[in-house]
Amino acid sequence: MSNQLTGIGASAGIAIAKAFVLENPALEIEQKTITDADAEIERFEAAVHIAKEELEVIKNHANEQLGEDKAAIFAAHLLVLSDPELLNAVKDKVNNEKVNAESAMSDVSNMFISMFENMDNEYMKERAADIRDVSKRVLAHLLGVTFTSPGAITDEVIVLAEDLTPSDTAQLNKQFVKGFATDIGGRTSHSAIMARSMEIPAVVGTKTITSEDVEGKMVIIDGIDGNVIVDPSEEEIAEYTKKKENFEAKKQEWAKLVNEPTTTKDEKHVELAANIGTPEDVKGVLENGGEGVGLYRTEFLYMGRNELPTEEEQFNSYKEVLEKMEGKPVVIRTLDIGGDKELPYLNLPKEMNPFLGFRAIRLCLEETEIFRTQLRALLRASVYGNLKVMFPMIATVGEFRQAKEMLLSVKEELIREGVEVSEDIEVGMMVEIPATAAMADVFAKEVDFFSVGTNDLIQYTMAADRMNQKVSYLYQPYNPAILRLVKMVIDAAHKEGKWAGMCGEMAGDQIAIPILLGLGLDEFSMSATSILPARSQMTKLSKEEISSHIDHILSLATNEEVIAYVTEHFATEEL
Amino acid sequence: MSNQLTGIGASAGIAIAKAFVLENPALEIEQKTITDADAEIERFEAAVHIAKEELEVIKNHANEQLGEDKAAIFAAHLLVLSDPELLNAVKDKVNNEKVNAESAMSDVSNMFISMFENMDNEYMKERAADIRDVSKRVLAHLLGVTFTSPGAITDEVIVLAEDLTPSDTAQLNKQFVKGFATDIGGRTSHSAIMARSMEIPAVVGTKTITSEDVEGKMVIIDGIDGNVIVDPSEEEIAEYTKKKENFEAKKQEWAKLVNEPTTTKDEKHVELAANIGTPEDVKGVLENGGEGVGLYRTEFLYMGRNELPTEEEQFNSYKEVLEKMEGKPVVIRTLDIGGDKELPYLNLPKEMNPFLGFRAIRLCLEETEIFRTQLRALLRASVYGNLKVMFPMIATVGEFRQAKEMLLSVKEELIREGVEVSEDIEVGMMVEIPATAAMADVFAKEVDFFSVGTNDLIQYTMAADRMNQKVSYLYQPYNPAILRLVKMVIDAAHKEGKWAGMCGEMAGDQIAIPILLGLGLDEFSMSATSILPARSQMTKLSKEEISSHIDHILSLATNEEVIAYVTEHFATEEL
Repeated sequence: MSNQLTGIGASAGIAIAKAFVLENPALEIEQKTITDADAEIERFEAAVHIAKEELEVIKNHANEQLGEDKAAIFAAHLLVLSDPELLNAVKDKVNNEKVNAESAMSDVSNMFISMFENMDNEYMKERAADIRDVSKRVLAHLLGVTFTSPGAITDEVIVLAEDLTPSDTAQLNKQFVKGFATDIGGRTSHSAIMARSMEIPAVVGTKTITSEDVEGKMVIIDGIDGNVIVDPSEEEIAEYTKKKENFEAKKQEWAKLVNEPTTTKDEKHVELAANIGTPEDVKGVLENGGEGVGLYRTEFLYMGRNELPTEEEQFNSYKEVLEKMEGKPVVIRTLDIGGDKELPYLNLPKEMNPFLGFRAIRLCLEETEIFRTQLRALLRASVYGNLKVMFPMIATVGEFRQAKEMLLSVKEELIREGVEVSEDIEVGMMVEIPATAAMADVFAKEVDFFSVGTNDLIQYTMAADRMNQKVSYLYQPYNPAILRLVKMVIDAAHKEGKWAGMCGEMAGDQIAIPILLGLGLDEFSMSATSILPARSQMTKLSKEEISSHIDHILSLATNEEVIAYVTEHFATEEL
Repeated sequence: MSNQLTGIGASAGIAIAKAFVLENPALEIEQKTITDADAEIERFEAAVHIAKEELEVIKNHANEQLGEDKAAIFAAHLLVLSDPELLNAVKDKVNNEKVNAESAMSDVSNMFISMFENMDNEYMKERAADIRDVSKRVLAHLLGVTFTSPGAITDEVIVLAEDLTPSDTAQLNKQFVKGFATDIGGRTSHSAIMARSMEIPAVVGTKTITSEDVEGKMVIIDGIDGNVIVDPSEEEIAEYTKKKENFEAKKQEWAKLVNEPTTTKDEKHVELAANIGTPEDVKGVLENGGEGVGLYRTEFLYMGRNELPTEEEQFNSYKEVLEKMEGKPVVIRTLDIGGDKELPYLNLPKEMNPFLGFRAIRLCLEETEIFRTQLRALLRASVYGNLKVMFPMIATVGEFRQAKEMLLSVKEELIREGVEVSEDIEVGMMVEIPATAAMADVFAKEVDFFSVGTNDLIQYTMAADRMNQKVSYLYQPYNPAILRLVKMVIDAAHKEGKWAGMCGEMAGDQIAIPILLGLGLDEFSMSATSILPARSQMTKLSKEEISSHIDHILSLATNEEVIAYVTEHFATEEL
């Protein structure tokens, strides 16, 4: 009899193939006393050397297959293996305590891992995962244990694993690996992001898939609804084969919309843009028919390195994006660091509630040198395309004024230096703090545009940390409280002749899209892969008709009531 | 020449007297090897015994002078000295490592202190302070060091100290100690709270007062504006003597209002109520002319102990408050635990952003046994006065419905058991999450009243942790965003014939009071000592006149603009 597990759909699509369980080999570390410390250190250095060579190969492979930004993680791994603090700690341990290299490496890396994990922020926890991945590789060489490399798979399979490390995922070959499922992870974990960008169906967070008796059995991965079926019946195979065909057909249909404008049934046009993190992401935006970049998160330029990026590095990245977008609008958000995104080299103080802390514009208005450098790079790049500058985490009118003043003073400075700067740069702000939604009419007089950041807006409006499982039930994008705030923002913008966009997850959501259309949102910015389904859905929706439902929707009491109402009255894009 | 330091006014009033620096004797702990472990343990037990005796005396003194709730801290200290985990750890160390008791005690208590401090929540940090206080006492006995007990002061002085421990503060004798100033601490630190309840002028957080050359010099404490003047000139003494007289006169004037109703210049009545934490606080409420209890925080019943309070204990506390208030309204808030207020015995998981976490009603709706026990106690007490039940941290209509349903089911259960329950219990909610303000019209149909909790409402609306110095500039009670949300709440309540109150710091604030009056707030709940100044201010304000300014105030852009406008147009109570 078949057995169904439910997890989180991490990458849409259906895959049906034989299971291949990627074992996580147990590395048994025994502490031994050694006599020849020099020989032991030599053995350690050799293991590090091989690990580095392997990582170079994986990195080059990832670079070709997945692009530079996805390969960056392996540059970080190589950095770990060149980190004198870690390497010397191991060698010192071997020298002073006369223990074998495996035991020294294991102790030292565990110390670093637990240090990073206890730092209690997502970025540092990822660093812990990096060290774990790298140290496993070195230990395996020291112990002479070979573990299955996902790159060695040459049958059509579905990979099942407790978790996939970055190096595992990068080695997956789409030709053979039809899909994967893991025990742990969420929609934003590294393996989930990789799966989406590789377009491999994936389900994460199944909790127990590797504890099942699965090896060699048929498995169905339903990345749309987040299900995994082990040992499916004939009927189930038929059913999912049909679902797979429907999904493929849907994708064909969407593909036809790549070069089409986004037009509703009643001939209204809205802009569908994409959120990006690096210049390499622009390729995906264009392939998916993005009409602009609605959010370029500049944080990645600052992360995974040991010092601030120079003005020149930043200028080159901004220029590259603007040029590749060929005059289409590009909204670049200034640095949103702090909170869960910490930069070790800034030595920010640990905070009790980082989501309510010293981050983004708050930090930039104090660390003015960092901010001015970024503003200089942005303004210099402005002549290469259609740049719009956006400030994150604005809470008060005073902050916006201060940030804009700084932008103008940097502009004057550049002009004095004889540098050419565009005269048509729109300056806007994120609306992600409830106070700014409540004051949108006042802000609208001073900004050129708004972009609603729903992840944060929802978490602050509901006072619920979106990363915290215990209160995740309060992450309610359709709660009428959120919709009312969004309406205040859109109405305020329009009253002053400005435009309003949205750049959170919600902008690409099938339930939210009809409502946002009815509220009059001008620009929807989402993951590149959501653009075509959204465009397809919009062709089936009449903006005017939905407008007549808005008052009723906003008078509903709960998130659930809104979902039920939208599902009943408006077309969603069935997947 | 005089020297002025600025700190935080912790307790209003002016004091002028000679400085008395309360030294924090350096306890130099030297580790020594001992031979007779048994004798050493005996020496340790003797020191613990004396410390306990002293604490009993201090506790009884505090009990008489300050009331049971303020004395509770010493019960906690006595618990530390009976904690077998701590005592046995010291004895084991002496036994096994053959070290002297001072060194063992110091090591063990430091371990506990750093453990509690790293727990990263305010409640646990207080536990660390308790252990530090207690262990200092034991160590002093072991070392034969005598330190000045504040109880031994018999001259009229102003006490200056780095910090005052709970045991220090409890020993202050108002007859001799005219005021105090400390280097560290804030408005809500223990010593500040004690100063207010003892009505001793105090300034905390001066940073450097003990580093100045002050011993024996004249000092002025200005607890109104938070200033300390060392070695004042004749003119300064004259100036502050005048200020002191004015303040005393003001207090006389206020005292006349104790039994008066709260009436504005245009004869409008509002209710001035008090926030309390324990039944003992009712005395202060009545002495200050409180017309009700607007917020009874039930958390204290659950804190500083090792297990949940029983239904009977809770019933007795609620009954006591209701009886003492003799039919005046008493709003009791159900358990608001979690976040920064952790209960060790509940073993709640550590959270990354506790202020956005699993707390208050979120916890109660899951831990239904805890909640039902409290609801039973509340309903049983309801027949002894005018009870109103209030749920904290409601974010969604669904949560309010669920909480109210539980209240009704407990009520039915009690009636089935033959227990008498009042039929006139109003059921309301805190408005402290932006979502509930935005949805106030929907909530107003289901609640009997609202009470705006400004501390949290401001922190969520501005997305700024109010405990975090780096973003404290965003704690803006007069930001028009906050005022607009408050207006939504009041208007929604009135439209449905319900009442709206406020129980945050803001309700007793001189700048906020005119605005809140103009917005139509029905009930103002504040610290008991703020009631009379507020009542006095209100007699000078015309509600109708202010109403005509409200549209203009809400159209202002910033916190500063609002302060300037209010200061210019309306009477505040000069202190």
